[in-house]
Amino acid sequence: MARVKTGIVEFDKMLRGGFMERDSILVAGPPGAGKTTLGLQYLVNGATQFEENGIFVSFEQMPDQIYRDAATFGLDLRKLEREKKFKLVCTSPDLLIAGDGEHLLDESIGQLKARRIVIDSLSHLAMYVEEKSLRKETYRLLNYLKTKQLTSLSTWESSQIVGQEFSVTEIGVSFLVDCVVVLRLVEIGSVMRKALVILKMIGSDHDRALREFMINSHGIKVSKPFSGFHGIVTGIPRKGR
Amino acid sequence: MARVKTGIVEFDKMLRGGFMERDSILVAGPPGAGKTTLGLQYLVNGATQFEENGIFVSFEQMPDQIYRDAATFGLDLRKLEREKKFKLVCTSPDLLIAGDGEHLLDESIGQLKARRIVIDSLSHLAMYVEEKSLRKETYRLLNYLKTKQLTSLSTWESSQIVGQEFSVTEIGVSFLVDCVVVLRLVEIGSVMRKALVILKMIGSDHDRALREFMINSHGIKVSKPFSGFHGIVTGIPRKGR
Amino acid sequence: MARVKTGIVEFDKMLRGGFMERDSILVAGPPGAGKTTLGLQYLVNGATQFEENGIFVSFEQMPDQIYRDAATFGLDLRKLEREKKFKLVCTSPDLLIAGDGEHLLDESIGQLKARRIVIDSLSHLAMYVEEKSLRKETYRLLNYLKTKQLTSLSTWESSQIVGQEFSVTEIGVSFLVDCVVVLRLVEIGSVMRKALVILKMIGSDHDRALREFMINSHGIKVSKPFSGFHGIVTGIPRKGR
Amino acid sequence: MARVKTGIVEFDKMLRGGFMERDSILVAGPPGAGKTTLGLQYLVNGATQFEENGIFVSFEQMPDQIYRDAATFGLDLRKLEREKKFKLVCTSPDLLIAGDGEHLLDESIGQLKARRIVIDSLSHLAMYVEEKSLRKETYRLLNYLKTKQLTSLSTWESSQIVGQEFSVTEIGVSFLVDCVVVLRLVEIGSVMRKALVILKMIGSDHDRALREFMINSHGIKVSKPFSGFHGIVTGIPRKGR
Amino acid sequence: MARVKTGIVEFDKMLRGGFMERDSILVAGPPGAGKTTLGLQYLVNGATQFEENGIFVSFEQMPDQIYRDAATFGLDLRKLEREKKFKLVCTSPDLLIAGDGEHLLDESIGQLKARRIVIDSLSHLAMYVEEKSLRKETYRLLNYLKTKQLTSLSTWESSQIVGQEFSVTEIGVSFLVDCVVVLRLVEIGSVMRKALVILKMIGSDHDRALREFMINSHGIKVSKPFSGFHGIVTGIPRKGR
Amino acid sequence: MARVKTGIVEFDKMLRGGFMERDSILVAGPPGAGKTTLGLQYLVNGATQFEENGIFVSFEQMPDQIYRDAATFGLDLRKLEREKKFKLVCTSPDLLIAGDGEHLLDESIGQLKARRIVIDSLSHLAMYVEEKSLRKETYRLLNYLKTKQLTSLSTWESSQIVGQEFSVTEIGVSFLVDCVVVLRLVEIGSVMRKALVILKMIGSDHDRALREFMINSHGIKVSKPFSGFHGIVTGIPRKGR
Repeated sequence: MARVKTGIVEFDKMLRGGFMERDSILVAGPPGAGKTTLGLQYLVNGATQFEENGIFVSFEQMPDQIYRDAATFGLDLRKLEREKKFKLVCTSPDLLIAGDGEHLLDESIGQLKARRIVIDSLSHLAMYVEEKSLRKETYRLLNYLKTKQLTSLSTWESSQIVGQEFSVTEIGVSFLVDCVVVLRLVEIGSVMRKALVILKMIGSDHDRALREFMINSHGIKVSKPFSGFHGIVTGIPRKGR
Repeated sequence: MARVKTGIVEFDKMLRGGFMERDSILVAGPPGAGKTTLGLQYLVNGATQFEENGIFVSFEQMPDQIYRDAATFGLDLRKLEREKKFKLVCTSPDLLIAGDGEHLLDESIGQLKARRIVIDSLSHLAMYVEEKSLRKETYRLLNYLKTKQLTSLSTWESSQIVGQEFSVTEIGVSFLVDCVVVLRLVEIGSVMRKALVILKMIGSDHDRALREFMINSHGIKVSKPFSGFHGIVTGIPRKGR
Repeated sequence: MARVKTGIVEFDKMLRGGFMERDSILVAGPPGAGKTTLGLQYLVNGATQFEENGIFVSFEQMPDQIYRDAATFGLDLRKLEREKKFKLVCTSPDLLIAGDGEHLLDESIGQLKARRIVIDSLSHLAMYVEEKSLRKETYRLLNYLKTKQLTSLSTWESSQIVGQEFSVTEIGVSFLVDCVVVLRLVEIGSVMRKALVILKMIGSDHDRALREFMINSHGIKVSKPFSGFHGIVTGIPRKGR
Repeated sequence: MARVKTGIVEFDKMLRGGFMERDSILVAGPPGAGKTTLGLQYLVNGATQFEENGIFVSFEQMPDQIYRDAATFGLDLRKLEREKKFKLVCTSPDLLIAGDGEHLLDESIGQLKARRIVIDSLSHLAMYVEEKSLRKETYRLLNYLKTKQLTSLSTWESSQIVGQEFSVTEIGVSFLVDCVVVLRLVEIGSVMRKALVILKMIGSDHDRALREFMINSHGIKVSKPFSGFHGIVTGIPRKGR
Repeated sequence: MARVKTGIVEFDKMLRGGFMERDSILVAGPPGAGKTTLGLQYLVNGATQFEENGIFVSFEQMPDQIYRDAATFGLDLRKLEREKKFKLVCTSPDLLIAGDGEHLLDESIGQLKARRIVIDSLSHLAMYVEEKSLRKETYRLLNYLKTKQLTSLSTWESSQIVGQEFSVTEIGVSFLVDCVVVLRLVEIGSVMRKALVILKMIGSDHDRALREFMINSHGIKVSKPFSGFHGIVTGIPRKGR
Repeated sequence: MARVKTGIVEFDKMLRGGFMERDSILVAGPPGAGKTTLGLQYLVNGATQFEENGIFVSFEQMPDQIYRDAATFGLDLRKLEREKKFKLVCTSPDLLIAGDGEHLLDESIGQLKARRIVIDSLSHLAMYVEEKSLRKETYRLLNYLKTKQLTSLSTWESSQIVGQEFSVTEIGVSFLVDCVVVLRLVEIGSVMRKALVILKMIGSDHDRALREFMINSHGIKVSKPFSGFHGIVTGIPRKGR
């Protein structure tokens, strides 16, 4: 089956080639873990390397900031927009949630013949709906994106930074998605390092290691698994096994 | 008493031959632990090896994905459907919950003379009812399946990944079922490995070890108990005893 | 004062002879710990060894399963029923709770001249009433059973499997009963072993050890206390002291 | 200032002679820790050794059980009742809480010229009032008892058995009382031993050690502090310091 | 800037001379930690050593007890009252909270030309208002005291005794005060010792050590920091670093 | 891109030059960690070293205290106010929240041509709105400040002091801001030391170490990362790795 490559080489290897086509992917992690960066790379690499156009749905009211941030990694979003390969959609969560608000994406999807989409973030949606509704609305939105043939990546910002008890989200939506990627901040040697793990990927084998990753001016770089620690997933690991 | 074999050899041994006939089984675990795969194998093996036809009730709106996922393990669901040995029922949780919604399964059960059923998942039901009602609705549904002579396997996706405090579900339904199988993700050597344990099995002896299992192209393979660690059940075990 | 023997030899020793007459006993534990088995043995042994007839109140809708399960331990409930020494009452929690629903037990108690009763389980009652009412209803029910000269054993299924913080129940009913027996699952060497401890027994000395027990075809067998571990009560003990 | 002796020699030493006159004392602890026994000894010793009569307010509906339990420690409550030195008042929590329900105690207090009273337990009161009201009602009741010149001892049954996080009660009433005595169950060598500590005693020095105590046929016997462990207060201490 | 000395020599050194004038100070700690004693010493020392008169606002209904308790430390409150240097105001929390209830303190403040005040305790206020209102009411009260040129000390009784997770109060009021002093009970060698730490002091340097303190017949005596333990702030420290 | 320097040399290095222009920064930490001091330094250094005027929005009703506190670090706020480089705005949270209350800042922003603003604190806002609204109101306020070209720093006082489970705020607002700076109190050698870490900074590399800092008469001084401990972020670290 066709794989949707992120273009982040080591991560695609972890995914055994890339995301599954039309899957909905959840990327969850604490503030500063790199969720938005991962989403942007997924779209830009799609547009520039794999001929798959993409839409970035942001609930930030200041589009400038997103262009600026992307530039940090050498990504020129405006150029891609001019080439009709990428589109930044800034909207309000309540518009997307209301009635059949998801159809406000119809036009953009059609114009770009988009194959990829990023929803950044489900945490913003959560400001506008009750928890139980949130799950239903998320479900409806993700299903809509599937019917549009899109492989979607949605982000969730966990409020927990570290902890012995660890859940993907505070709102229990992970069973609604096909793939769950967890980013964690990990204190080692008094430095908050970054870890990435693929927890779930329906219908595919996948790497199960907790790997360190970094974000530099070329974007995300996934490296080898942590070694010599236990409890990486808690964010406060201890030396040893 | 007759045993309902899963066809997963080592797991059937753990069950001392298989599930008890007409029991309701709960399979609980975090995202990516393999609950759906276990459910699919239970049904396909039933149909192909034990002459017991089965129904897979999914609340996913995209049946294609389930066929595709099953194919990963060499399972051809469409062929089984043509042979009237298997049926995939995609429905909405609220239909199943409403009034005597369970009767929408009557016809499928009759056509197949089904003996096995999988409800994937109770977590989806939980989106549509209050917690207290959820327990009552689950109870009613499971009892309905028993009166239909079905051995049912229901899944629950725990939002907790690891933790010192561990409960089977967040909603307290384990006393409603006859058999509880828990899947856990376990961080060892910076890799999220998979553990399986049978916690409860009314009226039968059963294996009590926390065993490692893997999912490969042949499906689920249960191997030997973890060794040299304590706290496997927390997901963040430590070396030693 | 007269003791109500369970017939489980080592357990009766722990109880310094047996339960206190007319006491209400709570048996709490996670799924699969053996609560129902303990209740059944208490009644069958009473009827066959101590000339005390007993009633098993179940909220399961399938009485067959209970007969079947008892048979696993060599207990022939139907025979005892024919001899008027035992009665299985299957009812709905709301019937027992409503108005003076406890009087639906009057007739059975009278017919058998019952001295023992098992309520399996209070967790089922909890589905039908608010938490605060639950305590009051439980209190009323247990007091009713005392006025009927019955020594009652009620079960509660804890949703917590293991944990550093441990409470008898999630609903705070232990102060309503005279005797509290706690069953725990304990992970040792990657196996979930079973522990039993008597926490409370008003008006009597009792064993205070956390003892291992097993369930085999002869029923419950209590053995010696765990040794060489600390934190047995948490379910995730560590080697040492 | 006059001290109200409990008659439990070692405990009175811990209290530097006894409770402070007219103080309200809270005795909190898990099921089976010995709260009721402590209360009974306080009253019986008062009546037989210190010429202070006392009232035991129970919310149990079966007074027989209390007489019986007291007999276990060689206490003949009925004899004391005939001598007008002791009175057992069995009432319902809602009667005591309603309007100025505390005045239902007026007559008993007057007849006995009572100086001591035990309320067993505040947990029963908690079944009949909302949490916020519970604190106000408790406060009103305890103040009423002071105006009657009584030194009162109230019990609270904690639902927590062991735990790293430890609070006196779940309902925050400790600031309403003058003296707080905490009983704990402590797992050492797989046995649940008993600990006692005086946390608070307004206007008096007091022992601050966590001491072991036992209950035998002579009643409560307080012995020396635990030694060689840390975390006694959590109930799951570890060897060492 | 002028310092408001507590007269507890070592504590004043920790405060670099004393509290800041007109600050609002919160003293939080579990039952029995010495909050009221600290408050009383603050006022009596003010009146006798520093010519600053003070008011003690108590929500206890029995003023006698406070006079008695103060006497334990050699403090003669009645004498100070006759000299118009101190006043004990016993009132009800709802009076102080209602409308502009704080003005019931106007007269007392005026008569004494008071410079110091103790509110014992905010926990009592919390019985009469909702949590959100509590913060607003506390804020209003503390601001009123500032406009009256008073340096106020308010107490809060934490229900938590020990625990790995530690918060100053359960109700989040610490951001409303200028200075936060935390008292803790610390289990060392099976004895509950007392610790004191200044967490916050706006506009001033302060000692940051967790120091042991004792209360004897001369009042509070602060000594040197704990040594050789880590986790003092949790109340269940371990030997080592 | 232009950097907004805090003037705290080592901190600016951690920020790779300073905050990003027009970003919204959240500074979260427990009472006494130095949040207000950091905010004041940010503004005063801006006005005196970088020609960027600033506004300090306080919800304290006593402006005097803020002038006084600033003086502790040698900051003369009144002089800066006279020079129209700084303005202290004391208001009530409900005024800022109501309708388009943020416009009450319009005039001050205009007069000063302000480029920097501090909101001290969001915890005060939380007293006046429901949690869900709080997030929306915060979002609206922060967006308003961006449209005014301000680089804003908002503070949040965490009620948790130390703990194994650590979240930036209790209210989940970190996904609404561009930069998250966390201050922690850390118990080492029985002293509460101070730690600072930059968790998130959109569009910029940043230091990821947990660094110690101190506040003396010259203000904040950031020093080197903690060394030889693990679990700094929990506040109760242990020696070793």
